[in-house]
Amino acid sequence: MSDEAFVTLVASDNYVLGGLTLAYSLRETNTQRKLVCLVTHKVSQTIRDRLAAAFDEVVAVSELNSNDSVNLDLLCRPELGITFTKLFIWKLTQYKKTVFLDADTLVLKNVDELFDREEFSAAPDVGWPDCFNSGVFVCVPNLDTFHELVELSENTGSFDGGDQGLLNEYFCDWSTKDIHKHLPFVFNLNANATYFYAPAYKRYGKDAKIVHFIGAAKPWMHARDANGVLHADNAEHLVEHLDLWWACHDRHVQDINLPQSFYPEEYV
Amino acid sequence: MSDEAFVTLVASDNYVLGGLTLAYSLRETNTQRKLVCLVTHKVSQTIRDRLAAAFDEVVAVSELNSNDSVNLDLLCRPELGITFTKLFIWKLTQYKKTVFLDADTLVLKNVDELFDREEFSAAPDVGWPDCFNSGVFVCVPNLDTFHELVELSENTGSFDGGDQGLLNEYFCDWSTKDIHKHLPFVFNLNANATYFYAPAYKRYGKDAKIVHFIGAAKPWMHARDANGVLHADNAEHLVEHLDLWWACHDRHVQDINLPQSFYPEEYV
Ligand SMILES: O=c1ccn([C@@H]2O[C@H](COP(=O)(O)OP(=O)(O)O)[C@@H](O)[C@H]2O)c(=O)[nH]1
Ligand SMILES: O=c1ccn([C@@H]2O[C@H](COP(=O)(O)OP(=O)(O)O)[C@@H](O)[C@H]2O)c(=O)[nH]1
Ligand SMILES: [Mn+2]
Ligand SMILES: [Mn+2]
Repeated sequence: MSDEAFVTLVASDNYVLGGLTLAYSLRETNTQRKLVCLVTHKVSQTIRDRLAAAFDEVVAVSELNSNDSVNLDLLCRPELGITFTKLFIWKLTQYKKTVFLDADTLVLKNVDELFDREEFSAAPDVGWPDCFNSGVFVCVPNLDTFHELVELSENTGSFDGGDQGLLNEYFCDWSTKDIHKHLPFVFNLNANATYFYAPAYKRYGKDAKIVHFIGAAKPWMHARDANGVLHADNAEHLVEHLDLWWACHDRHVQDINLPQSFYPEEYV
Repeated sequence: MSDEAFVTLVASDNYVLGGLTLAYSLRETNTQRKLVCLVTHKVSQTIRDRLAAAFDEVVAVSELNSNDSVNLDLLCRPELGITFTKLFIWKLTQYKKTVFLDADTLVLKNVDELFDREEFSAAPDVGWPDCFNSGVFVCVPNLDTFHELVELSENTGSFDGGDQGLLNEYFCDWSTKDIHKHLPFVFNLNANATYFYAPAYKRYGKDAKIVHFIGAAKPWMHARDANGVLHADNAEHLVEHLDLWWACHDRHVQDINLPQSFYPEEYV
C-alpha cells in the first residue's frame, strides 16, 4: 500500500515531540501505510533528520497562515493561524489517498481501515457537532482541491481562523449528506471527553483508536518530576491518556535525546 | 394535524416554569400541532390546571426512576433518574407521531418540519457526539417499543443513569445508519455552545431553532433583581438565551402568578 499514507504536520519546533510520538504509535500498530511529515522552514535541519528517522518521508512546504487574529481570539488560540499549512496534504499527489492526523494525536490501535473511507471523512467536533473536527480526516490529494481551498481561504477566510473553520466551510455538506463520511468518534477521541460525559466514556471508551489532545496544553507540556511522575494540574481527567502518550514517547523518542529545551522544566 | 403532538415532561414542580414557557414559545411560532404535557403524582392539581391552560392535553403518568446513583454520580446529576418517565411518550398512541422536548428547551422558530422526520431522529450530544442528546427527539408512539424500553431499563439499565443512556442503548445504530435521523444541531442547540466553540456559534448560531439549557442551573434558577435584570454569575455566555427565555416567560407566564416559591430569591 505504498500509494496511501498517514500525514501529519510539524509546522514549528514545539510540535516535534508530538509528531515523533505519533509516528512511533502508528508503527507500533503495524500499519501497512507510509508515514509522511510536512514541515515548514521553522523546523531546523537537525530536527528534520530526527523526523526522517521516524517517518518514511519528510516534505518541506511553505507556511500558510490565516493571520486572522479576530476569530483566533474568539477561539482563545492565537497560535492556530499556522494550521492552514495542513492544506498542503492535497498536494501529495504521489499518494492516492491520505489520512491526516494532528501532531497531538496518539494512535492506540491499528487504523488502516480508515483508507476504506472516502474524501471527505472526519469525526464530529464536540464544540459544535455539526462541524467535524479537523484533527483526523481522510482525503484524496488533488491539485484542484488544493487551489480551491487556498482560494477560499483568501476570499472567504475561516470562521475560526484555523484550518477547521475553512475545511468545514468547504466540505459544508458533511453533516447532512452521507453517514459513511462520519468517522466514529473513537477515531478522534477528544481526550477531554473522559470529563465531558464520563458515563459515555465508561461505556464506549474501551473502543478508543485515536486519542486527540485538543487544547492549548499538549502532553509534552505537562511536566514530569525526576521519577517520571506526571504533574497534570487541572487535568486529572487526562492522566490515563497522558500516561499512554508518555509511555510511547519513552519507548521510542527518549533515546533520540532531543535538546532539553523541547521539554517542560522538570518539576522539583 | 391533530394526530401529531409536541410532548414534554413535568415530573416535578421545579420544572413547571420550564414546561409553561416552552408551551408558550411553541404557540408563539404558530405551531399547527397539539401540545401535550406528561405529569407525575408529584405535580399538584392546582399546577396541573395551570398547565392545562397552556397545553392541549395534560396526561398523568406514573413515575419511572432508574434509581441508579452510581452512574448518576458519574454524570454529577443525581436528580436525573426520574427522566425515565419520558418513556411514557411511547404510550401516547392516540398520536401517529410525536416530538419530545425537554422542559428546559425554548423554541425560537417554527419547527413543525420535525414531523417530516422518522423515528428515531435526534441531534448529537456535545459530550460524546456519537450519542444523541435526548432533550429533543422524534418518535412514533407504540406499545411494543414502550415495553421493550422498560424491559431494557430493567435488564441492562442506562449507562448514564438517565433516559439518554437508555435511549442511546436502544437506538444504538443512530450514529452509523441514516444521516436523515441526525437532526441539525440548531434543533437542539446546547446553550453552552456559545462558549464551547464561539466561532461556530457566530457562524451558525443565527439559524438556532430550539435552544436547550442543559445542566443543573436552569433559566428559572437564575435570579433577577427588582428591575428584572438577570444575575447570571459564571454564565455570562448564556445571557443572550436566558434573556429570550425570560422574555417569553414575562409575556405569558408572569400573569399566571405561580406561588413565589417557584422562583429564585430576588437579588438585592
Ligand atoms: O504552532 C503550531 C500549531 C499547530 N501545528 C500543527 O497543527 C495541528 C493543529 O493544531 P492543534 O493540534 O494545536 O489544534 P487543536 O487540536 O488543539 O485544536 C497540530 O496538531 C500540529 O500538527 C503546528 O505544527 N505548530
Ligand atoms: O426533576 C426533574 C428532572 C427532569 N425532569 C424532566 O426531564 C427532563 C430532562 O432533565 P434535564 O433537562 O434536567 O436534563 P439535562 O438536559 O440538563 O441533561 C427535564 O427537561 C424535564 O422535562 C423533570 O420534570 N423533573
Ligand atoms: Mn490537535
Ligand atoms: Mn434538558
